[in-house]
Amino acid sequence: MTHTVGVLGATGAVGQRLIQLLDPHPEFEIRALTASSDSAGKPYRKAAKWRISTPIPEDIAEITVAETDPGAIDDDIDLLFSSLPSSVGERVESDFCEAGYVVSSNSSNQRMAEDVPLVIPEVNADHLGLLEVQRDERGWDGAMVKNPNCSTITMVPTLAALDEFGLSRIHVATLQAVSGAGYDGVTSMEIIDNAIPHIGGEEEKMESESRKLLGGFDGAELSIHDATVSASCNRIPTLDGHLENVWAEFEEEATVEEAREAMESYEGIDLPSSPDPLIKVFEEPDRPQPRLDREREDGMQISAGGLRESGTGLQYNCLAHNTLRGAAGASVLNGELLAEQGYL
Amino acid sequence: MTHTVGVLGATGAVGQRLIQLLDPHPEFEIRALTASSDSAGKPYRKAAKWRISTPIPEDIAEITVAETDPGAIDDDIDLLFSSLPSSVGERVESDFCEAGYVVSSNSSNQRMAEDVPLVIPEVNADHLGLLEVQRDERGWDGAMVKNPNCSTITMVPTLAALDEFGLSRIHVATLQAVSGAGYDGVTSMEIIDNAIPHIGGEEEKMESESRKLLGGFDGAELSIHDATVSASCNRIPTLDGHLENVWAEFEEEATVEEAREAMESYEGIDLPSSPDPLIKVFEEPDRPQPRLDREREDGMQISAGGLRESGTGLQYNCLAHNTLRGAAGASVLNGELLAEQGYL
Amino acid sequence: MTHTVGVLGATGAVGQRLIQLLDPHPEFEIRALTASSDSAGKPYRKAAKWRISTPIPEDIAEITVAETDPGAIDDDIDLLFSSLPSSVGERVESDFCEAGYVVSSNSSNQRMAEDVPLVIPEVNADHLGLLEVQRDERGWDGAMVKNPNCSTITMVPTLAALDEFGLSRIHVATLQAVSGAGYDGVTSMEIIDNAIPHIGGEEEKMESESRKLLGGFDGAELSIHDATVSASCNRIPTLDGHLENVWAEFEEEATVEEAREAMESYEGIDLPSSPDPLIKVFEEPDRPQPRLDREREDGMQISAGGLRESGTGLQYNCLAHNTLRGAAGASVLNGELLAEQGYL
Amino acid sequence: MTHTVGVLGATGAVGQRLIQLLDPHPEFEIRALTASSDSAGKPYRKAAKWRISTPIPEDIAEITVAETDPGAIDDDIDLLFSSLPSSVGERVESDFCEAGYVVSSNSSNQRMAEDVPLVIPEVNADHLGLLEVQRDERGWDGAMVKNPNCSTITMVPTLAALDEFGLSRIHVATLQAVSGAGYDGVTSMEIIDNAIPHIGGEEEKMESESRKLLGGFDGAELSIHDATVSASCNRIPTLDGHLENVWAEFEEEATVEEAREAMESYEGIDLPSSPDPLIKVFEEPDRPQPRLDREREDGMQISAGGLRESGTGLQYNCLAHNTLRGAAGASVLNGELLAEQGYL
Repeated sequence: MTHTVGVLGATGAVGQRLIQLLDPHPEFEIRALTASSDSAGKPYRKAAKWRISTPIPEDIAEITVAETDPGAIDDDIDLLFSSLPSSVGERVESDFCEAGYVVSSNSSNQRMAEDVPLVIPEVNADHLGLLEVQRDERGWDGAMVKNPNCSTITMVPTLAALDEFGLSRIHVATLQAVSGAGYDGVTSMEIIDNAIPHIGGEEEKMESESRKLLGGFDGAELSIHDATVSASCNRIPTLDGHLENVWAEFEEEATVEEAREAMESYEGIDLPSSPDPLIKVFEEPDRPQPRLDREREDGMQISAGGLRESGTGLQYNCLAHNTLRGAAGASVLNGELLAEQGYL
Repeated sequence: MTHTVGVLGATGAVGQRLIQLLDPHPEFEIRALTASSDSAGKPYRKAAKWRISTPIPEDIAEITVAETDPGAIDDDIDLLFSSLPSSVGERVESDFCEAGYVVSSNSSNQRMAEDVPLVIPEVNADHLGLLEVQRDERGWDGAMVKNPNCSTITMVPTLAALDEFGLSRIHVATLQAVSGAGYDGVTSMEIIDNAIPHIGGEEEKMESESRKLLGGFDGAELSIHDATVSASCNRIPTLDGHLENVWAEFEEEATVEEAREAMESYEGIDLPSSPDPLIKVFEEPDRPQPRLDREREDGMQISAGGLRESGTGLQYNCLAHNTLRGAAGASVLNGELLAEQGYL
Repeated sequence: MTHTVGVLGATGAVGQRLIQLLDPHPEFEIRALTASSDSAGKPYRKAAKWRISTPIPEDIAEITVAETDPGAIDDDIDLLFSSLPSSVGERVESDFCEAGYVVSSNSSNQRMAEDVPLVIPEVNADHLGLLEVQRDERGWDGAMVKNPNCSTITMVPTLAALDEFGLSRIHVATLQAVSGAGYDGVTSMEIIDNAIPHIGGEEEKMESESRKLLGGFDGAELSIHDATVSASCNRIPTLDGHLENVWAEFEEEATVEEAREAMESYEGIDLPSSPDPLIKVFEEPDRPQPRLDREREDGMQISAGGLRESGTGLQYNCLAHNTLRGAAGASVLNGELLAEQGYL
Repeated sequence: MTHTVGVLGATGAVGQRLIQLLDPHPEFEIRALTASSDSAGKPYRKAAKWRISTPIPEDIAEITVAETDPGAIDDDIDLLFSSLPSSVGERVESDFCEAGYVVSSNSSNQRMAEDVPLVIPEVNADHLGLLEVQRDERGWDGAMVKNPNCSTITMVPTLAALDEFGLSRIHVATLQAVSGAGYDGVTSMEIIDNAIPHIGGEEEKMESESRKLLGGFDGAELSIHDATVSASCNRIPTLDGHLENVWAEFEEEATVEEAREAMESYEGIDLPSSPDPLIKVFEEPDRPQPRLDREREDGMQISAGGLRESGTGLQYNCLAHNTLRGAAGASVLNGELLAEQGYL
């Protein structure tokens, strides 16, 4: 069955990636695009500066962009994908939910709210049950589900796979691509021949979101995982693909071989955009690498490698395409999960 | 007083940096340059493909390059700086010491030998006393002192400053510049728009060298520091300057403010090439950055920043110019220390 | 009909691109791979350091690499693609032709020989008739056809389209990607934050090859086009895609609009790997750009843009993927042409 | 003698470079800094995001930034350097001149006005005489002198040197660094692994400014040089240093050797910031290169190389540091010329 969908914040970096994914999608059909009032009323091809190397889909190019306002789009849209900047999302996403829309959002606002499911379908699809609580509490006909931050998504599937050994303590250092900051987020003068050891708010997001994602849901309430997570985030001169160095400590002992098997065999729910397998584990010590591995499985696979012992635990590297798996693709997966579980 | 010096392996990346530092040096006068047999017999300007942005010093350009062999250079050279590849250094450096030469070496061979002092003058100048043991055991008239690996040097001064709180456990992730691999070490196809989460042998070097540098010397024997060190090393598309994310845990509690003071006030021996202060601590959370900070104090200063609490300890970033502070400058400092302590 | 093919020099940068193109090719089936004696006897997956972001095809990975020698491969191979280094090609390609093999070669040796067709199928497919002359003169059962240098291919289709106005004089400046020099051709220390205004032999190749390609063939002899061509070649920090600035002067007057139409309507022979259209002409003044446009039509299309008047002629920019359209894809197109015209 | 100076537009990329040059300058003493009203009233260290690798000068850091308005700064400032954005400069620079200030401006507005001298001191110091005409016509006590665009400055000294052979026709392709667009001018997403064959208005500036600079001044009026100039401008992923490929045709014949001598011996007026020699000519065919040569003579020298015959003329490459020689340093040189010729 096909569902009609819209994209809130369709002109930005993640918005363009959403269109790239949704246009050929077998289950979704784009009917609405919104952007800021500067762009409203223009055909999409004029409103957006298209910067993806595959051409802008022709039918999408002619859609007239609407204001980002519940009154400005059709009632009969089944699902909205939101890639709004956090401050804008904070202000308007709830309005859409109140007006009855189901929203799958990449925007960072409200991710940690107690009644908002933060979901990676392969990891914690069961958290979607929280939508009942959400609707009760907020009196919404619509619903809001969030995907986590790109740097969080890169790491959490590997941690979820290893949680069978009882995660107790995580250190993670990130090497993040410039696209994570949006098209204008990092100037060339800042990053060529350089690296920046700070991304505002990123470490806090990784630490809190990871523990929510790895936590349990008893049908009424979420519990937070009690592992500690400490992150150090860096921007480097790479276009796409976040690479992360992880140290994991466990309650039980885990060998390199057991960890590899746990990652390779880790499976979640199977959705149209799911990669197979979810996690590719390299034996070559110098993989994964952003440029070589970010496009695996249409940019939806998590790659891991360099598994080795490290004093009191294990050490490894992981990688994902930050605007596909880590943003637009994450929202699409959540949309597919909403469809499959009957929320549309 | 001026000492006559020579450079072993003068045509490589670190060799060129050594010449850049030694040519204007007030205490040293270059009298000999050696390289592989391909280059021997040629004037230096023809033997070396000079790639530093300051021009090749004119008097150096005309020196005839000798073979890397004790018989090929003058007897009356007070001090040799070695930037030989490790495998070559392994083979020939001891021959020079046996022939009576004092060698300050950047080459990684023998760094962990029990009777070879591995020295950062500001951190463990007292380890130089090990040369008496070395001469006794090896029957040398000459002597061999080593400086550590560039990624180790970047971190150890900050750790030494913090050891007043009792270092117990270190995690470190590195973002290393391409010059650390030599001029031909990393191809452009490997690293543009990419990062490589593996540098052969680098993690082991950081782990073992750090503990040797931070250890004590009782006049007869070295003791290794008992902190654990776990490193994760990455190559990124930056020309010069290694950036590192450090997590440090302590036996005693250390606040951010105490740690800052410890770093800012940390002082070692004062030599001609010493930076002042040894460690610059930034308050801006996004500093240090390789391109902005690697040239501080002629490339000899260690920069730190981003000091913050991290669960059971502290977290911070540090940076140093890898071919100056981390290699050529490190060897020059050790040469200055040898001069000051009467070994020349 | 399917033809059996082999790749000479299969482990290098262009060799890997050839395998990427030939493995899924409907008309060609890879039966032999050759490389230097270091690699001979090993399965391809061990002989080649695969660096393309799509995985190495599984069946190809297990092929045993042969020596690059006519005696080392099967007799019944219909067509050999050669991506041998020029000096090696110079030595052995003729041996293959003499042994009866038909060779479509990207190697730069013999490109300017009077009896060797230098072909871009869309531009001068008729030059293939020169093979009769070649076989007569050299007494070969086999045959040798060459494609031009990557920087030449980028420009010549646009010039061919404009030759209806009578090309008289060409100036061209190139901004060439590092992959054009092979995987190890340009080190990261050479090119990050830099540009190099010299590529050995490249300007001469562009000048001579262009005039041969644009020349006529009367069934017996080639004539060289009498336009003058002056090139200035630069290497820049781009991975793939050569961008070129062209100034063209004509015997007859040509308006911007006429030039655009000439390019857009320019058509050549239609082969399985031909792009459609051959030349994409952008109206946006800042296109084409290497990263945005090099993958168009599977990397086989020529892009042009920035058409404008320029004193005594016209000015424009053009771009092609240098290892696809400009090398491996060029050889594959020539192989398809050989098949279509009955040479296999 | 020391002159008091101010900087209009002191917080931008060129403004920071101006401060870097003026702070240690023997003849100039900074007394005033202006910026937009957002910054006015703040100490400079807070108003500017300092991004040069040498630290912000301490005394400058504490200067209170003023509004860019003649009423907001002291009357007794001898000379103002302007690095205002063109649109702002268009609006306010004349106000400063009318209020009696002498302005040396890098802002592109009014460069082509008939009574505004556009000056590179080594090339056309005599054009400064036009200030008499300017003051007559505009009734100013102050005066306005302009330096050309960075890409123009890179090329014109070499052309001036060659004009003894009678320049008739110039083609030039540029490879321009990102700093030429200001700190925020080029995003990392636009330029990493890419090149952009268009810089708005740049080609027109190179064409018109070059002919004005190379023209004559008869004491009353300027004449424009009658050579034709055709430019093709590209942005590449380089931080600083514009590299240009030039083809020059002449009325008289010029050999490579004569051209080299003309460039090497070309001298202009000698000012405190003048490089010596003005033009460095490399014999190595692969020089100049941006990273290796942009810092020559404190970033004030023009480098040339690759001199070779080219059909009807000569071909060569040239390079200059675009924000030093090409912008801030160009304005400082003009300030020095104004001082030497008694205009302050």
